[in-house]
Amino acid sequence: MRVYLDYNATAPLRAEARAAMIAAMDVVGNPSSVHAEGRAALGIVQTARAQVAEAVGCQVAEVVFTSGATEAASVLSGFSNVTVEPTAHDALWAHHKPGEGAPSVYAMGVGNSETGVILDTPLRDDAGWRIGDLTADLLMLDITQAAGRIPFAFSWSGADLAVLSAHKLGGPKGVGALIVKRGLDIPALSLGGGQEMGRRSGTENIIGIAGFGAAIEAAARDLADGVWDRVEKLRNILEISLEASAKKTIFVGKDRKRLPNTSCFITDGWKGETQVMQMDLAGFAISAGSACSSGKVRESRVLRAMGFDAGQAASAVRVSLGPETTENEVLRFAEAWLSKEEKFRARAA
Amino acid sequence: MRVYLDYNATAPLRAEARAAMIAAMDVVGNPSSVHAEGRAALGIVQTARAQVAEAVGCQVAEVVFTSGATEAASVLSGFSNVTVEPTAHDALWAHHKPGEGAPSVYAMGVGNSETGVILDTPLRDDAGWRIGDLTADLLMLDITQAAGRIPFAFSWSGADLAVLSAHKLGGPKGVGALIVKRGLDIPALSLGGGQEMGRRSGTENIIGIAGFGAAIEAAARDLADGVWDRVEKLRNILEISLEASAKKTIFVGKDRKRLPNTSCFITDGWKGETQVMQMDLAGFAISAGSACSSGKVRESRVLRAMGFDAGQAASAVRVSLGPETTENEVLRFAEAWLSKEEKFRARAA
Repeated sequence: MRVYLDYNATAPLRAEARAAMIAAMDVVGNPSSVHAEGRAALGIVQTARAQVAEAVGCQVAEVVFTSGATEAASVLSGFSNVTVEPTAHDALWAHHKPGEGAPSVYAMGVGNSETGVILDTPLRDDAGWRIGDLTADLLMLDITQAAGRIPFAFSWSGADLAVLSAHKLGGPKGVGALIVKRGLDIPALSLGGGQEMGRRSGTENIIGIAGFGAAIEAAARDLADGVWDRVEKLRNILEISLEASAKKTIFVGKDRKRLPNTSCFITDGWKGETQVMQMDLAGFAISAGSACSSGKVRESRVLRAMGFDAGQAASAVRVSLGPETTENEVLRFAEAWLSKEEKFRARAA
Repeated sequence: MRVYLDYNATAPLRAEARAAMIAAMDVVGNPSSVHAEGRAALGIVQTARAQVAEAVGCQVAEVVFTSGATEAASVLSGFSNVTVEPTAHDALWAHHKPGEGAPSVYAMGVGNSETGVILDTPLRDDAGWRIGDLTADLLMLDITQAAGRIPFAFSWSGADLAVLSAHKLGGPKGVGALIVKRGLDIPALSLGGGQEMGRRSGTENIIGIAGFGAAIEAAARDLADGVWDRVEKLRNILEISLEASAKKTIFVGKDRKRLPNTSCFITDGWKGETQVMQMDLAGFAISAGSACSSGKVRESRVLRAMGFDAGQAASAVRVSLGPETTENEVLRFAEAWLSKEEKFRARAA
């Protein structure tokens, strides 16, 4: 029986999302059509829009459905003065281009995908958002890892833009949202039929959107019910189990505010990709801090930005738990990993 | 029992797509992950890629999955010299900006969504693609309405780019593809994790892609089996039934090469939107030639470009059939529409 401990890469589909998606499969129409079939499809989109708005604490009209956080973040490509926090996800980092010209945007993640570290969001005064010496007109928050895991409300954050993906919280892959503060005028994500109030053209992913809405509603309920407190206890059990034997292993960000489910640890000299493969063969799905989409390994930009050297950054793995994770799974993982770690130490000695 | 005659807006989900999507719901991993769960997800993407390539007659590596034809067409925004054929879909037309600078792109639809008219694709000589006086370096074909309905092979067309959506051929809404001729260097559709060979970042819509692959495989089989010849006969029965009584009704493009399933007809003075609503109340889903995504009505750019006046363009409806359409449904529609048309004539007299 496999043990899945890679929730920050993607979470299993929630039962609520699955049911909503299967129900949506029977809705024939295109939401842009005015006939009964079209109106039924539009109803699915609007129900999900309300579910997302409720869960992220924004207004219904502020939700723009996209194909995921990456597409949502691409709205940054329409701005000429964008500063991205160095440990932000590549989908934001790709748009880092500090320059002249207003409005300026500062983009950052809330909850790092590799380490779980939660950065404080900046404060705003009359001059704008204050980030050290920098002042920015607009703030974009990537809440992909935070949504449904830690309390967050877009309206309370004061942010101008937020991006998230359904699949990290138990919705389907390939759907997400851009949250746009009411009244903010931004470039359209795509041009054509004028869907999503003109902000994102293209026929809506009805089935995926239905799953997103159902998943985020269930995720918000889980959060309110304290499910992630239990997950955090398991994460701490994991770290205590590992550090008791693996004395040289560094737990990244352990003294900082972190997502409740994430543990990133460095065992210098034992390559992260090797650990991932060894654990995969032993039946556990975890991630290297440094894997990219092609499966090739590169140095972790995030860990380097945190001050780790190249060798350390290449020797990290990430274990990320979810609501379905059990204590037994965590203990089995710890046992399996420690047995490999002992062999690594023996070889290195 | 409702009768759905709006296949050019969107088609019902095929049983094969539904089954493939439900199966994909059980696959937990992210295709970018190297562990077993990730490889299983990647396998779904690669199976679907092969299915799409087979159906559109291109190489597997030429298929880039997107959230639909609109996103795929947005690759045009990376070019500074784009000429779009005037009856093309808004998703292409939005990028019309003839200018200087190489390379130049000519974009057009194969099979018009509103009228069904099939335009000849241009020929290429040493100077490039020849469109009247215009010469273009690259040709983009929008095959959204053609794919699975008429024979088409990307490789035989010689085109450089093609775009299509899954939902017009019985796949889910919110997934599609950009086909890129091997060796052609184009701007990335989105930046971030580097998925889709760097051409389109963002976690893949696994469930939707699985449905797309299964649907296009089934659509190609239908086409080979002559299903659309039967659909064409029904379309012709419809037009013969209508024109026998509605003497003033104009059937758009009737003397031209058309998609087998589409009939667009103008009854001057009887607003298309009114017809759509009347038929909706009578139990039939059809479309006005002029509906846009917001449900508001605007003049049909397509019909105006074909030389119809504003009044005619506003008095058009589109009936579009599919593989599930029956002769009984077509005859019931004809009877219902003719009864309304008689009342319209009585009022107009």
